[in-house]
Formats: sequence, structure tokens, C-alpha cells
Amino acid sequence: MSATIEQTTPATTPDTSGESRRAVRIGICGLGTVGSGTVNVMARNRDEIAARCGRPVEIVQIGARRDNPACDTSGVDVSREIFDVAANPEVDVLVELIGGTTVARELVLAAIASGKHVVTANKALIAEHGNELFAAAAEKGVTIAYEAAVAGGIPIIKSLREGLVGNRIQWLAGIINGTGNYILTEMREKGRSFEEALRQAQDLGYAEADPTFDVEGIDAAHKLVIMASLAFSMPLAFDKVYTEGISGVSSEDIRYADELGYRIKHLGIARGTEKGVELRVHPTLIPQRRLIANVNGVMNAILVSGDAVGPTLYYGAGAGAEATASAVIADIVDVARTLESRPEERVPLAGVARGSQGGTRVLPMDEVVTSYYLRISAHDKPGVMSQVASICSDQGISIEALIQHEPAEGEALVPVVILTSRAREARLREAVAQIEALDTVEGEVVRIRVEPLG
Amino acid sequence: MSATIEQTTPATTPDTSGESRRAVRIGICGLGTVGSGTVNVMARNRDEIAARCGRPVEIVQIGARRDNPACDTSGVDVSREIFDVAANPEVDVLVELIGGTTVARELVLAAIASGKHVVTANKALIAEHGNELFAAAAEKGVTIAYEAAVAGGIPIIKSLREGLVGNRIQWLAGIINGTGNYILTEMREKGRSFEEALRQAQDLGYAEADPTFDVEGIDAAHKLVIMASLAFSMPLAFDKVYTEGISGVSSEDIRYADELGYRIKHLGIARGTEKGVELRVHPTLIPQRRLIANVNGVMNAILVSGDAVGPTLYYGAGAGAEATASAVIADIVDVARTLESRPEERVPLAGVARGSQGGTRVLPMDEVVTSYYLRISAHDKPGVMSQVASICSDQGISIEALIQHEPAEGEALVPVVILTSRAREARLREAVAQIEALDTVEGEVVRIRVEPLG
Repeated sequence: MSATIEQTTPATTPDTSGESRRAVRIGICGLGTVGSGTVNVMARNRDEIAARCGRPVEIVQIGARRDNPACDTSGVDVSREIFDVAANPEVDVLVELIGGTTVARELVLAAIASGKHVVTANKALIAEHGNELFAAAAEKGVTIAYEAAVAGGIPIIKSLREGLVGNRIQWLAGIINGTGNYILTEMREKGRSFEEALRQAQDLGYAEADPTFDVEGIDAAHKLVIMASLAFSMPLAFDKVYTEGISGVSSEDIRYADELGYRIKHLGIARGTEKGVELRVHPTLIPQRRLIANVNGVMNAILVSGDAVGPTLYYGAGAGAEATASAVIADIVDVARTLESRPEERVPLAGVARGSQGGTRVLPMDEVVTSYYLRISAHDKPGVMSQVASICSDQGISIEALIQHEPAEGEALVPVVILTSRAREARLREAVAQIEALDTVEGEVVRIRVEPLG
Repeated sequence: MSATIEQTTPATTPDTSGESRRAVRIGICGLGTVGSGTVNVMARNRDEIAARCGRPVEIVQIGARRDNPACDTSGVDVSREIFDVAANPEVDVLVELIGGTTVARELVLAAIASGKHVVTANKALIAEHGNELFAAAAEKGVTIAYEAAVAGGIPIIKSLREGLVGNRIQWLAGIINGTGNYILTEMREKGRSFEEALRQAQDLGYAEADPTFDVEGIDAAHKLVIMASLAFSMPLAFDKVYTEGISGVSSEDIRYADELGYRIKHLGIARGTEKGVELRVHPTLIPQRRLIANVNGVMNAILVSGDAVGPTLYYGAGAGAEATASAVIADIVDVARTLESRPEERVPLAGVARGSQGGTRVLPMDEVVTSYYLRISAHDKPGVMSQVASICSDQGISIEALIQHEPAEGEALVPVVILTSRAREARLREAVAQIEALDTVEGEVVRIRVEPLG
């Protein structure tokens, strides 16, 4: 085996196209974690990026209230006024990395108004104002790229919108919040309580002082509606997402799930049904053998099922300076390559040509059909099981598995764990209400949805 | 929670661009499994594809020696002479699905010569003749799309070439042959021998009557060089790949690997080093906790590590009519959308602009550094361990783990399993030769490389 490729292959003949194209001029607004990561990676991989893009990509201006020692901005015009970047005629592409939905929205609209393309990592902005922003961009014939808004460095937007373009997406389910996945992983692997795991996540900088956004599923809901809009060619419908956090998940339930061959993950799920699209974020039992059930720590993964391709999975870092920068730069290169293209030659920002998007109905949770994990605290009396069973059967729910555990030390109550058949949420809710009303049952029934993801 | 999205969002205003564009005319050559799958999926999802592409995509001609009852070609001009499609002025994009490297090469060159874009699922053609074909396409200003050539429906080419464009790829490792992965999975889960598992794969239609192509790693090598050329901006170097099959893997070794916390997978590995790029296909021990170690059956997965994004994984069906069609259609849409674009506005087919590709050196196996799993059949005499240990240390190889197993029923020989430290292949080979020469050791030493993939 010879060790080198000496013969200069045809592909290495002198460039005839790339060299002739002028540099694309980038303006970055926001110099926080992602902003500094983007500046650093663009500097470090400058030559590779230019070779792949077919033209140089240069940061000509940065708008930031303050400098960030994490990156070197020497040689770049830094303005303390981010709107300078939106107004700068020397900027072709404005990269919005300031976060939030108020100033960011105005900034993006200003950039669009001045005919600039926009790249953003802002999931809240796209999820809550995307419909308005996309329309404004379409009017001006510019694009808004938002790969970095979902699952950090994982190219999931590109995969959904381009890679799986031949498919009808049937459903997708994602671990799209690293903080929540870290907490659930710690609870399972180290037997920690939610509070302990959260505190540790905060100590490690994975969780904010106010963790609501992550642990209550709002962040995941933002990402879910963005993916769902592409998967089902529907408008962004953030206000229609059912959202349930993980603060109610106990290590006890994680242990019982294990016994039954399941893992508990915080999933964002979108599924197409005849009656509408399900949009829901909640803790979910997943069979242990599924690849996504084994995605641990702060990592993200999205499982996407298409009618032609079947199930596919995309895994990687969902956050972090350079992982997110990786997605920002991918968007910058896509925009840079097609800077002079006609709008219809670019990938449509909403996934479909204007006018082709439907006003898809979002299925109310009452109509959603799933299986359920139920944990009942019952007095160890004869008859309680038959009462529970008859309540379920009255609602057309059958019991697939039932485990009666030993009462905890000095506890009179017996934990009874049930896996139900698939049933409509409304019926399940009714059954649970009746079970809670039994005098042989104490307190609330713990309920966690189950998804086979098969 | 309201159940519907009544407000017509801006994105649903009438189309102004898409409608004006004429249909893109597709010619398909080859009506086998993938060809019929492509025809079926394009018909089934016709409207979705047009909406996402921004223009209709129509199959105007099919070239096939014989019809395929698996798909309906009524209304399409079917020619028994595939070169008619390459010559047909009504065809914009020729889709090569005939396979092989002789006629297929001529067909693709003919299509390029007549100014057509080409979409192909032919891994052997790209791996062995890609440099020539890419140069011909570049000269004519047309593109060759080959997503379907690697890992079926998994959008790995798009992810490498576009999604991770901001990264320096450090290494990639893939389970890219479903037949081999099915065999190894059966061997591990059912304790079958290689021969039994192979026969079953043949009965199920996963393996050919002559399985050489799959089990000896040639198919994986084709896919590996295509991914490596994009990851490392190097010419396609199929003749430089080190290839080792799985026919030598025994269920015994799979069992011992399990004991040590590893799985044995047939991987295609490309790694960038200071001295050159490693290109190798061989059975590999992977830590069980790695996600890719849990990819079973006929499924494929590719783990890609970039300097900015870190490790990412892409999982899905690596073969099958509609899974492969999914990738073919993604390519068709990419080409259709940019049919009128200037070449430099398209993603460069070799991943980088012409002239930017290096003549990257491929590292000879002697220089590759890995850990090793060794299984030695030794006579149960004192001193043999110290002999082995001193031979290894003389070569600068330390022993990380050593398990001495009980001899098999009625066997005098003791199986000794060793995990070594990382060492250069040349030194490992020398150590193994010396161990095999010991009179306390019988037969050949089994050697399987170990990759942490961390």
C-alpha cells in the first residue's frame, strides 16, 4: 500500500470561480458565550471556511455593549450600539446573538428593512415571532437562518428541511434541553433527588439561578415548535404547545421505570395525526433499548421518523460556545454562498415556498392518545386492585403491567405501579380522578406518559 | 388552550415566486430496488416535494432494461436504452441507479457531456471514479449529488459538507454496512457463529449469495473514502484504504469483549493526524457506554467529531428501497432548486471550491497508533505471562488489562485476553510475532483494534 496520493487529481486544478467572488461581510451583534465562540471559531478555521464557502467570509463589524475577553476582536470595528450594525451598508449578513425577544426582534426587523440577511441562534425569538419575521424577510427577499436556535451544533434544521425533504414526517421526539437531561441522568445514575441534581447542575453552570426556563420545559417548547413547523409545514405555534416540566419526577419513579425496562426522559414530541399535530413537552418513559433512551448528561438528540426513511436520530452537544458557533457558521456559509441568488433558489426559510404552508390544527391534549405510567399510593387492603382495574376498564383502558411494591420503611401505604394501554387523555384523566377518590387510595396518582418510539 | 391556528399567518400569503418556475425534469436510469422506491416516493409525496422545492419535480423519462412491478411507471416514457436518457434534451437531471462502475461511469460522463446534472446512489462509482467525474462535472458547470451513496437515508453527506462546515473534522467512525452489523449483532445477542449469522442474513435477503463485498469491508471502504474526502478536503483515495473484514471475528471474542465492557463493531474510521489521514475499515472494540456501540441490526450510524461541535452522531437505515430513495430525492431537490444558479452558488461537490483541495497524505497502517485486544492460546505453564509481558514492554507496549480464562472443556490451552496501551501498529505486529514464536503459545494470536471514540 503506497502511503501518499502523489498524482494531482483533477479536483486540484486551479480555482476558476471561487477566487473571483468578493468577501462576504458579517456583522455580529452580541458578544456573549455564543458570540465570542463564533468569533473564535471563524478566526481559527478561516481558511477552511473560505475554501468550503467558495469565497472569504469576514467579520467587518461587531455590536456589543461590552467587550468579551474570551475572544480577540482586534482589527474589527466594534460598536457599543448594536443598531449600528443593522444600519451599516458594509454589512451583508447580520448575526443576532444578543438573545431575548424585544430588542432582538427590533434588531432583526431593522436588519431586514435594510436588506440584510439574518442569522440567529435565538430560539425564543423564532418560536414566538418567527411568523412575523419570516414574512418580513420574504417581502424583502432576504433570508433568516436559525440552525443554531435548535439543539446547538446538531444540524437538525438542515436535516429536517433539506435532508429529509422527500419524506412525510410522521413524528419527531427530542431530548432538546441539556440541563433537564443532565438532572434526570444524575437522578438515575447517582440516585439523587431532583433538588440535589438541580443544585449540582447550577454549581456546574448548566442551570440558571432561576431554572424555570429549562426544567419547566419552556426552552424545549421553543425548540419543538421550530422543528414542528418544518416537519409539518405549519406556522410556528408556540402558544399551542402543551408543556410539563420535570420538577415532579421522583427518583422513586425513575427506579420503578428501570424495573419495567424504561428510562424517563424529558421529551419534546410532535406527531402528525389525522385530526391535527400533537405538540407536547413532558417527562416520558422510553424503552431502554431505544438509542435515544441512552442519551445522557447534557447531550441532546432528536429522533425523526419519515415515511420513506423510517427512524433517524441526530445526536450532539445542544449548547456551549463553540458547538452553537458551529451551527451559526453553517448558516453564515449557506447565506454567503447564495448571497447573490434569487430568493427562490434558496431553501425556503419556513421549509416550503410561500403560500404552501397550511394552517395546521394543533391537537388538544384531551384528544392525544398515549400509554401511561401510574403510581398509586394504596392502603394494603384486599379489593383495591379490583377497584382500580374496574375503573380503568370502564374507561376502556386496560392494564398492561402492574407491580405492587413493598411499603417503604414504617410506611403503611403500598406503592402500586401500573402501565396502561393506549388511551385518550380525557379518559385517562377521568380514570385517575376516580382512582384518587377511592378511600383505599391516598393523595395524588403520579402519572407519566409512555412512548414506544418504535 | 385553543385547539386551532385560525389566524392566517403571514407565511400563508399567496405564493409569488414558486409558481412561476417551470417543472424540473428528471430522468431515472435503473429500475431496481432503489429506482422503484424513488419512483414510488416521488409519486406519493409529489405535492410536499413541490412545495418544499418551490417548483414541480417531474419524472419525464425512465431508462431500464426491464419493468419493475414494484412501481407504477404509467404516463412516463420508458426506454430500454439508458443512454437515451443521457441524450434526452428534455431531461434536466439524470438519476443514475443502475449500479456498477463501467456502464454507470459512461452513463454519468455522457450525461455531464450533454450538460445534465447527475444524482447517483452509486458508492463504488464515486469512490473509484469520483475524482474523474467531479472534474468533468466542474468543467461543464454541472453538479453530481451523491447523498444516497453513503448510509442510505441518513443525511451524512449534507451534514459533513454543510452542517459541520465551520469545523475542522478531527475524526469520524461509522457503522456503514448493515449486513455486517446485523451479523455481529446476531452473534452477540444469540451466541451464533459467524457462519450461522451469515446464513441467516442471506435467508433474510440482507446478504448476497457472495457476501465478500459486505463482510470483507469493501462496501464500507467505498463509503468511508467518500466521507473522508469531504471531512479532510482530500481526493477520493479508495486504493489507500486499509480493509479488514469480520469473517475472523469469533463469538468467543465477542463474549470476552463484553466481559471487558466493550462491543465489537465493524467500523470505517478516518482520522486526521499531523502525519496524514488514517483510512481504515476493521472490526473494533468500542466501550459499551458509547451510543454507537448500541447501534444494532442492519442500522447504520456515523460518529463525527469536529473541533467546534465536538462529537455528533447520525443514525438511520443504511439501505432499503425507500430509505435510499429519501436521500436520492433530497439530492434531486437540492439540484432542482439551484438548476439555474451559477456553479459557485451551489455547494461544491468535493466539499471545497476547485483548487482548494489538498493532496492529503494517507497514513500507512504501520504508523497508525491504537490500542489492541489480543487473545493468546497459551499452555498453562508458569512463566508464560511474564514472557508475554516482557515482550510487550520491550516494544514500549503496556498491558492495561489481562484476563486468563478457564480452558474450554477437554482443552489444554488457556485463552489469555489482553488489552494493550496505545502503540504503533509496527511495534504491535512485532510483539505479536514474538509472542506467537513462544513455545508456550499455540497458533496465531487473535488481534482486534480498540477505539475509545471519546
